[in-house]
Amino acid sequence: MRLSRYLPILDWGRRYDRDALSNDMIAAVIVTIMLIPQSLAYALLAGLPPEAGIYASIAPILLYALFGTSNALAVGPVAVVSLLTASAVGQVAEAGTAGYVAAALTLALLSGGFLLLMGVFKLGFFANFLSHPVIAGFITASGILIATSQVRHILGIEGQGHTLPEMLGSLWANLGDTHLATLVIGVAATGFLFWVRRGLKPALRGLGVPNRAADIATKAGPVLAVVATTFAVWALGLADRGVAIVGAVPQSLPPLTMPDLSPALLRDLAVPAILISIIGFVESVSVAQTLAAKRRQRIQPDQELIGLGAANIGAAFTGGYPVTGGFARSVVNFDAGAATPAAGAFTAIGLAIAALALTPLVFFLPKATLAATIIVAVLSLVDLSILRRTWAYSPRDFAAVATTIVLTLGLGVEIGVASGVLLSIALHLYNTAKPHVAEVGRVPGTQHFRNINRHNVETDARVVTLRIDESLYFVNARFLEDLIQDRVVADESVRDVILMFSAVNTVDYSALESLEAINETLMALGIGLHLSEVKGPVMDRLKATHFLAELNGEVFLSQHDAWDALTRRQPPRAAQ
Amino acid sequence: MRLSRYLPILDWGRRYDRDALSNDMIAAVIVTIMLIPQSLAYALLAGLPPEAGIYASIAPILLYALFGTSNALAVGPVAVVSLLTASAVGQVAEAGTAGYVAAALTLALLSGGFLLLMGVFKLGFFANFLSHPVIAGFITASGILIATSQVRHILGIEGQGHTLPEMLGSLWANLGDTHLATLVIGVAATGFLFWVRRGLKPALRGLGVPNRAADIATKAGPVLAVVATTFAVWALGLADRGVAIVGAVPQSLPPLTMPDLSPALLRDLAVPAILISIIGFVESVSVAQTLAAKRRQRIQPDQELIGLGAANIGAAFTGGYPVTGGFARSVVNFDAGAATPAAGAFTAIGLAIAALALTPLVFFLPKATLAATIIVAVLSLVDLSILRRTWAYSPRDFAAVATTIVLTLGLGVEIGVASGVLLSIALHLYNTAKPHVAEVGRVPGTQHFRNINRHNVETDARVVTLRIDESLYFVNARFLEDLIQDRVVADESVRDVILMFSAVNTVDYSALESLEAINETLMALGIGLHLSEVKGPVMDRLKATHFLAELNGEVFLSQHDAWDALTRRQPPRAAQ
Repeated sequence: MRLSRYLPILDWGRRYDRDALSNDMIAAVIVTIMLIPQSLAYALLAGLPPEAGIYASIAPILLYALFGTSNALAVGPVAVVSLLTASAVGQVAEAGTAGYVAAALTLALLSGGFLLLMGVFKLGFFANFLSHPVIAGFITASGILIATSQVRHILGIEGQGHTLPEMLGSLWANLGDTHLATLVIGVAATGFLFWVRRGLKPALRGLGVPNRAADIATKAGPVLAVVATTFAVWALGLADRGVAIVGAVPQSLPPLTMPDLSPALLRDLAVPAILISIIGFVESVSVAQTLAAKRRQRIQPDQELIGLGAANIGAAFTGGYPVTGGFARSVVNFDAGAATPAAGAFTAIGLAIAALALTPLVFFLPKATLAATIIVAVLSLVDLSILRRTWAYSPRDFAAVATTIVLTLGLGVEIGVASGVLLSIALHLYNTAKPHVAEVGRVPGTQHFRNINRHNVETDARVVTLRIDESLYFVNARFLEDLIQDRVVADESVRDVILMFSAVNTVDYSALESLEAINETLMALGIGLHLSEVKGPVMDRLKATHFLAELNGEVFLSQHDAWDALTRRQPPRAAQ
Repeated sequence: MRLSRYLPILDWGRRYDRDALSNDMIAAVIVTIMLIPQSLAYALLAGLPPEAGIYASIAPILLYALFGTSNALAVGPVAVVSLLTASAVGQVAEAGTAGYVAAALTLALLSGGFLLLMGVFKLGFFANFLSHPVIAGFITASGILIATSQVRHILGIEGQGHTLPEMLGSLWANLGDTHLATLVIGVAATGFLFWVRRGLKPALRGLGVPNRAADIATKAGPVLAVVATTFAVWALGLADRGVAIVGAVPQSLPPLTMPDLSPALLRDLAVPAILISIIGFVESVSVAQTLAAKRRQRIQPDQELIGLGAANIGAAFTGGYPVTGGFARSVVNFDAGAATPAAGAFTAIGLAIAALALTPLVFFLPKATLAATIIVAVLSLVDLSILRRTWAYSPRDFAAVATTIVLTLGLGVEIGVASGVLLSIALHLYNTAKPHVAEVGRVPGTQHFRNINRHNVETDARVVTLRIDESLYFVNARFLEDLIQDRVVADESVRDVILMFSAVNTVDYSALESLEAINETLMALGIGLHLSEVKGPVMDRLKATHFLAELNGEVFLSQHDAWDALTRRQPPRAAQ
């Protein structure tokens, strides 16, 4: 029992049969074909040699297959994490150096260790601090940054920068160096891939190809672009005319590598590693959850942390860089029929064969083609409609999205996402700091109580009922004191105040002291303080204090009971 | 109208009469007598020359009288703010230098400017982020730090440090230098003042003195100690034998001073100034509110910010240092009958006279006596029972108090209070991240629905009702998705899910997307999703989206309606 909790393979492995095997093998072949160009491209995006992308797809997939809980998740390099890697490692090492490669390994190790710790201590909920609008804004801004960062490969010029203004400035400065042959290849590949995405599937469907097959053929588009442009570069000798190519890629299985563990590097990369872990986890777990639900299956988020942690640690020791579960490849895996994590293991074998046998074939592959595959892939991440949708829904969510997008583009990925998270928390706290409180009266002839400003209800000048629509805690405790003073202290006719607690889910110690202060203030004025509809857990807490003993009034089970008891007291008199 | 909002004096000034005048004058005389030794002592605590304490009590009081809204609040140097000043200024200048004095003026200016800004933009609620337990812990730890910092004056030795270990280490190292005559004076003064506080009032009451008069006489104890020890030092020539004395204090009205405005200093003092502003404001406003409520009066917290801001800016330009409304002096002012802020103005006049005429008299005042008055005053702030009380109430509040106390003592005031605030926020978010959700069923024969685990209720395997006891927002949005998957996805008998929203006060965009995801998941499984008891403001938000149109089910006004409609459907079938 206990071991299979941490090693889900013991569970599904026992039930593995021939059907599952054939489904998994078919899915693995399709995903492998898709992953070869994608892995090379994302390594380029991360500023690493192309083989790092292949290596990052082998050991991590195998380790995830051992520890992960999703049957369809495909783990490996993804666009956003590659961008984050480039941003983090670029700050501590020069791209193209051995130090850069070693720092990427360190980043994967730190990230894996952090994920593993979160998993062991079941801290997956920390990922929830990334709100949906912040994630959406961040992904959109990242897509724009990634696409912009690849434009230089299409133009065949130099370029740098980690923010949009830096990138655009650098592109503008070097625009005069544009390399014509590279530009032709880049634009042709980009145009072709956009057509594959938008036009090929309808065309295939028109020819009578089944939907699923048409989908999968579409995913093979990048392979076709790679083959065609590689052949063109080789046949026309374009490499000698200045078209940047991938060049020699070692023909080997993933090497055993050792991350750089110098304390200064670990310190510099710690915060980016945490950020990469959390963003990678959020992306991965939402894909895994969506796919699992379609088959009425469940994933365990805390075990997913362990699976992803193991995958990243694996990447650190086998020449990779930070990885996570990717959206596009997982959907392909799922659609191709992957039944268990074994599909991932077969994909790893496919990629290992590619690393051994196919790498010489990509020697003449132009970098512009890889850039085109990245641009086409990430532009589908860009969705500025989140701005419109949150604007329509609430200014608070809009502020979080807009801040995240603007700061990610303008100041970089780390500052952007951190600001979005902090702003979300601050706005949430601000919102609960001035909670909605309604003065309610009885709807005539019923036991229902409604806002006196919205409904035609019975009231009694001697009895004021305030319904508090928020949990009471330190941020809003003082607000309640102010509110009651405002409403009651100046109104001489008030004899009793009822606080209706139906929406109060917790009362913390600060709020308890505020309630005590309110009770004292009202007692000094001869006004009774009563509570109604207090929830079980809140009542349990209050019973452990002196508050109920000192309360200058009663606790009523329902608001109806409270109203009945207090308005029937004749003649009006001060509470005892 | 508008002007008197910002200048409350226009309001109470018009109604000022002879009765108020005589009440205010009497209160002013009593408070002035109390303030003379206290002002000198707190200046010593802040590391400033004694006259700074007097100056800080003159212009600030006058400015508060113009802009403040409390009739009883007495503004001036207070213990905790003096400690914070010593800690902040000690980091940028050497005690006893002109730079130290100028930096204290800068701190007062920054602090005043910050308070004024908060007041103008009505941001007083920011103070609510200091929870009651954090404040209680901070005040207690500050009291211990302050008392410890004064022990060296009682012993007549050198000493330094801003944390408890530093102070104790320094005291221990210099213990051999203890000065006997100073020790005798210090211990005698401390013992006398403790007796005044604990024993004098009962003794006077026993002699038939009225309660209020006995109270006020008790407050005059420090003056007696000052007079007696000053006389002893002068008569016995102890100053020549090494007893540290106050020495020459300039005989003048507050001078016009200019704070040091160098950018580096402003930057270094900005964060401490914010901290001092907020802590000072919280202390001041809670005193003012308590006293106002006793007379059925109200204060305006945002206008209080303006009053305190003006007072601090005044302090900056008249040789003072950061000030706020003090607890002890305000209570004395209130008990002595202060009727309007004019009492404060008269106190300022009294102190101005003292600054002109009485300062030569304190030449021989031993610093040990001032240290004794500080120790006796601040030990009343130390209340470790907050640890026990929060422990009994909730572990979360206990953690906040304990962290604040331990870190304030061990690492200093800024780190202590900042950690307390951050921990409180983190624990609150953690708490709402896994909200209480109850599966409810109908109490037989009623329209009430209760937790199926706590009550004997009717249930229906086809209809699951989940009552969500928390607002839905990004931190807990994913939790709800998990929860519904856990409960529903694996249970084949479920045909309808009702989410009971009676305690859901807000639904943010993240939660909306989670609800949409839940709806899609359940729809794919042929399960209906229904809402009941949705509040008005939440419903308004939802109506602005497509969610209600896409909902695979209905929104019911009451849980009773929902239950009735869904359980009566015969035979069991998938929701449409």
